[in-house]
Amino acid sequence: MIKVVLLGFGNVNHHLLNALYKSDKVSVTQVFNRNYIKMISPFENIPFTDDISKIVNADIYIIGIPDDAIASFSESLPFQNKLVVHTSGGAAMNVLSSKNTRGIFYPLQTFSKQRPVNFVNIPICIEAENPKDLELLQSLGAAISENVVEISSEQRAKLHLAAVFVNNFVNYLYKVGNEILEENNLPFELLKPLIAETASKIETLSPEEAQTGPAKRNDNKTIEKHLHLLENSDFKAFYELFTKALKKE
Amino acid sequence: MIKVVLLGFGNVNHHLLNALYKSDKVSVTQVFNRNYIKMISPFENIPFTDDISKIVNADIYIIGIPDDAIASFSESLPFQNKLVVHTSGGAAMNVLSSKNTRGIFYPLQTFSKQRPVNFVNIPICIEAENPKDLELLQSLGAAISENVVEISSEQRAKLHLAAVFVNNFVNYLYKVGNEILEENNLPFELLKPLIAETASKIETLSPEEAQTGPAKRNDNKTIEKHLHLLENSDFKAFYELFTKALKKE
Repeated sequence: MIKVVLLGFGNVNHHLLNALYKSDKVSVTQVFNRNYIKMISPFENIPFTDDISKIVNADIYIIGIPDDAIASFSESLPFQNKLVVHTSGGAAMNVLSSKNTRGIFYPLQTFSKQRPVNFVNIPICIEAENPKDLELLQSLGAAISENVVEISSEQRAKLHLAAVFVNNFVNYLYKVGNEILEENNLPFELLKPLIAETASKIETLSPEEAQTGPAKRNDNKTIEKHLHLLENSDFKAFYELFTKALKKE
Repeated sequence: MIKVVLLGFGNVNHHLLNALYKSDKVSVTQVFNRNYIKMISPFENIPFTDDISKIVNADIYIIGIPDDAIASFSESLPFQNKLVVHTSGGAAMNVLSSKNTRGIFYPLQTFSKQRPVNFVNIPICIEAENPKDLELLQSLGAAISENVVEISSEQRAKLHLAAVFVNNFVNYLYKVGNEILEENNLPFELLKPLIAETASKIETLSPEEAQTGPAKRNDNKTIEKHLHLLENSDFKAFYELFTKALKKE
């Protein structure tokens, strides 16, 4: 049984608790958060503390707090020589205080409060200072996911950057589509099957193979029409940039 | 039984034939294409012609050819006063020759040769010059999809523009993600669960609610890191444009 304490209870650690809780190989022995949080069902029996001096013993401490708070928080922990990991895609392992042994437990997924997530297919990216800790993180990851991978801090930074493109920026394009439709009294529902198929396609085709559209086929008449429709729109710059890049392909 | 002749046999009409063929309310009586095409199983019994003078009688003629060829091709048809529609998102209804009655039968989806498509949820956008034809197109649409909507040429142009954003441009962002990973010897597989979840999210959340990431939360430290990683990359301009737009939200 791997004993885990969660440090911080934001989006990532909240979703992580949901997953860890269901595993019979893991026991979450405590949740710490700077501000009081009432543990609600099914977690009402997991001890909570907002007192850093009362953090209990565990095999792994998982920090889930904003990137720029990780360094000072990890330095303030009142114990040493334990395995302390963070869950961030964007922060290096060595931002963690060296008074504990350090590691990474980064679930590569987008988490929203409102939406449950199934961890089974989520890549868990792990990293550790020594082989023993890496093995322990491997076991923890395997308890919730079939996809645990060892990745260096440098690679993880690139992975996180790529994730911003395929998640945050993609979602912004959904927003653009939504706004264009709203302005024309058309329901966003119309685009949902297209959005779903666009994402599904790359499960079997490479993005290169899946690429279609006016820019790809050099259909300048359609491109001109679209630029005309976007006159005075903030979205015109996006259209131009994508079209230029796609024509270069 | 609605009798249909397909004019042109590119991606859209090919996929359309797959769907129409399965309906017992529709009979595809002929496929015309300028160049010879061998009809293969299960379509070996559908008559094919590459002779425009031999096009047979039908209730609806569906043109599926490049946008800029629709006008002259529809003018060259050797019959009149029949219902002739095209399947393009980007071309207005009135590019069709007025010697036949005109209409639109636009399935809003991305079609690739290699990938079968289920039409049931695909929005079929229809338009017609008169109510009788609209009703016929409604019946034809209902034979393959549960989502038939009447949309004007003007609205369809906007819808097609929005589709370019959520399909063609989104797919290009997948390509960016893929390239960043390849450069760092990481498999694209790592991003697939994130891509799937990003698309699934907007089935239950609005794009506004689903938005996350460094730009959204004004995490300038991470943004600086990412811009540094993108130094000398073609993708930097994309990062800057999206980040600027997301910070304005």
